[in-house]
Amino acid sequence: MRRVAVIGTGHSKFCFNSPKTAVELLSEVAMDAIQEANLTPKDIQAVNVGNVLGDFEEGQGMIQSFVANDIGCFNVAANRFEGACASGSIAVRDAIMWVASGYYDIMLVGGVEKCTAMGTPLATRTFAMFGDAHYEFPAGFLFPAVFGLLAHLYASKYRIPLNTLREQMAAVSVQSHEYAMKNPNAQIQKPITKEDVLNSFVISTPIQLHDACPFSDGAAAVVIAAEEVAKKLTSKPVYFAGIGQASSGKLSSQHKYLPRIYARELACQQAYSMAGMTPRDMDLCELHDCFSIAAMIAAEGLGFFEFGKSGEAWLKGETRIGGKIPINISGGLKAKGHPIGASGVSQVVEVTRQLRGDMVEQGRQVEGAKNGIVDTLGGDGILVSLIMTNQ
Amino acid sequence: MRRVAVIGTGHSKFCFNSPKTAVELLSEVAMDAIQEANLTPKDIQAVNVGNVLGDFEEGQGMIQSFVANDIGCFNVAANRFEGACASGSIAVRDAIMWVASGYYDIMLVGGVEKCTAMGTPLATRTFAMFGDAHYEFPAGFLFPAVFGLLAHLYASKYRIPLNTLREQMAAVSVQSHEYAMKNPNAQIQKPITKEDVLNSFVISTPIQLHDACPFSDGAAAVVIAAEEVAKKLTSKPVYFAGIGQASSGKLSSQHKYLPRIYARELACQQAYSMAGMTPRDMDLCELHDCFSIAAMIAAEGLGFFEFGKSGEAWLKGETRIGGKIPINISGGLKAKGHPIGASGVSQVVEVTRQLRGDMVEQGRQVEGAKNGIVDTLGGDGILVSLIMTNQ
Repeated sequence: MRRVAVIGTGHSKFCFNSPKTAVELLSEVAMDAIQEANLTPKDIQAVNVGNVLGDFEEGQGMIQSFVANDIGCFNVAANRFEGACASGSIAVRDAIMWVASGYYDIMLVGGVEKCTAMGTPLATRTFAMFGDAHYEFPAGFLFPAVFGLLAHLYASKYRIPLNTLREQMAAVSVQSHEYAMKNPNAQIQKPITKEDVLNSFVISTPIQLHDACPFSDGAAAVVIAAEEVAKKLTSKPVYFAGIGQASSGKLSSQHKYLPRIYARELACQQAYSMAGMTPRDMDLCELHDCFSIAAMIAAEGLGFFEFGKSGEAWLKGETRIGGKIPINISGGLKAKGHPIGASGVSQVVEVTRQLRGDMVEQGRQVEGAKNGIVDTLGGDGILVSLIMTNQ
Repeated sequence: MRRVAVIGTGHSKFCFNSPKTAVELLSEVAMDAIQEANLTPKDIQAVNVGNVLGDFEEGQGMIQSFVANDIGCFNVAANRFEGACASGSIAVRDAIMWVASGYYDIMLVGGVEKCTAMGTPLATRTFAMFGDAHYEFPAGFLFPAVFGLLAHLYASKYRIPLNTLREQMAAVSVQSHEYAMKNPNAQIQKPITKEDVLNSFVISTPIQLHDACPFSDGAAAVVIAAEEVAKKLTSKPVYFAGIGQASSGKLSSQHKYLPRIYARELACQQAYSMAGMTPRDMDLCELHDCFSIAAMIAAEGLGFFEFGKSGEAWLKGETRIGGKIPINISGGLKAKGHPIGASGVSQVVEVTRQLRGDMVEQGRQVEGAKNGIVDTLGGDGILVSLIMTNQ
């Protein structure tokens, strides 16, 4: 199959209570991506969109066809993907296949969410629809509880005193806030200290406020193209070298493997294998840090640190620029923000811009980066891994 | 790319108020499809699901991963597609590409909906989310109004007196009820007469009760495989010969073309072209008759009758078994039922079983049928065409 590259990117500022509709938010960044690719809307042959709560939040389902039409991509095939937080990454992975196979040459992939107008408590309950709704939700498993449970399991399995784990988790959030200060698209641009995290209110023990990402409104988009097309349109194509996806069922079905997420380990192995790369080949990583403990579990599952050791890595600065593996230099979901259906596409935009060397001006460029990996977790257990390269 | 075949089918009885959850409904028919394909769940490499209202109706989003896990398709990639009524067909078309490209050999595609517990009036309002929610819905464009408008436009454009059109529309419904009597999976198994239709209450002029399909609970599934795999597993593979998909934006953006649906005409041309076939090569058709007028518009857009002439065709019996083109011999959405996300997959199951010759026992076999076409409309303007063949 053909190599596929990102040739254009668009990314809104993530925020609370955007006055724009989801269609408007996505349309704007889609136009940015198309223009950056030196194309016009009529060059786009199909559109994939990640969106989770459009019907709940705005009473607007099926936004993909309205976005396509509104920006002038008339009469194309337009699909919406719902895989909870991984919706955007799933939309990207699917589009890669349609281009790699030769069916389409150029596609637009976008992700968008508006989920802040309902307020965080209701959004938290609403979002529990993407765990098991019939058995586990009634038992109290909203997502803060899920990750609270995983944090306790993590502490227990790796014999880490809870106070030590809390300090490790705090280090994850502190770093994300620091880098988000350099990202103009980030929702939260406020430095925090370890003490701020440890003194914030408890959401679901041991998860505290500053361990959790916010709900966000926002959108991101990429234009992808087959290699031969990409080379004509940009001097800096960024290719997808490997893709992977796997899923688990309800949380209780995963009890033997937790706090590790088996689907992640399968998904990234598919991606590493397809790319002919290993974790050591990665120069940066955008991973799914919906909660600080989620970031730690992800970094280990992706092969960057030994199991139970990623907290120490964050404390030592191994996850910073210049460290062993720079992680979430965008600010991550924690501080860049987490507009659910957009997050996966946002990660792809971030890695693309890093691999093009675009981040020098913002003061957060990973110098000489050649390869990067995107990791997105949807619900309790859909995992997508995308390895990107500028080589 | 490789040819792709359906090698297993599953189909629930469509009904009101199923006591099963969407995950349970889909899991059952998925197992039927897997067993019919002479496979076990561990042979399935990925799962695509069409589902629209799972989160609204049951508070359960992301059902694809729960279904996959519950039936024993552990850790596969599992995706949910939302394209309103076309969700199931979109899920099928997408899976075809993943198998045709060589990435997967065997996939499961399902569609499921539970939407009757909320009651028809609320379901009608809820489903209006899949039109334009910000401008057209507030103006009263629930879907019965959309198709009422199209019926008036149709009468006006083709100079058909409204009373004549009403009789033509009634003929569509009468035929669908008649064939549904022979389909044990059909939701409505009651004959109706022209007078029943014309005396039923008005929903949105000139649409009356018996012009409209019901809301339904139900599920359908197919196992698809690459040709070389298919030939080892079944003596009666049914291949996808052509696929097409296109979309329009909001209804108002289509005003120059209505009552014709331009996206349909593009989508079926893509499918005919890919298959190297014309409408004359089709031996049967399952098309999207959410309202009787929708069936008439669809049959013309697919190339079976001249524009403005399909009502006469129904009256003359040209759409019956033995007629020019047998249409909706399943009973169609009108009488078989319309569990939204399942309907496209249900159409694929129906055409598959006809092309295998399975319908003799039910007394509704299209004798000697070689090729069939599936047409599914999502919302105001997502269209999917799938041409299938047993040759």
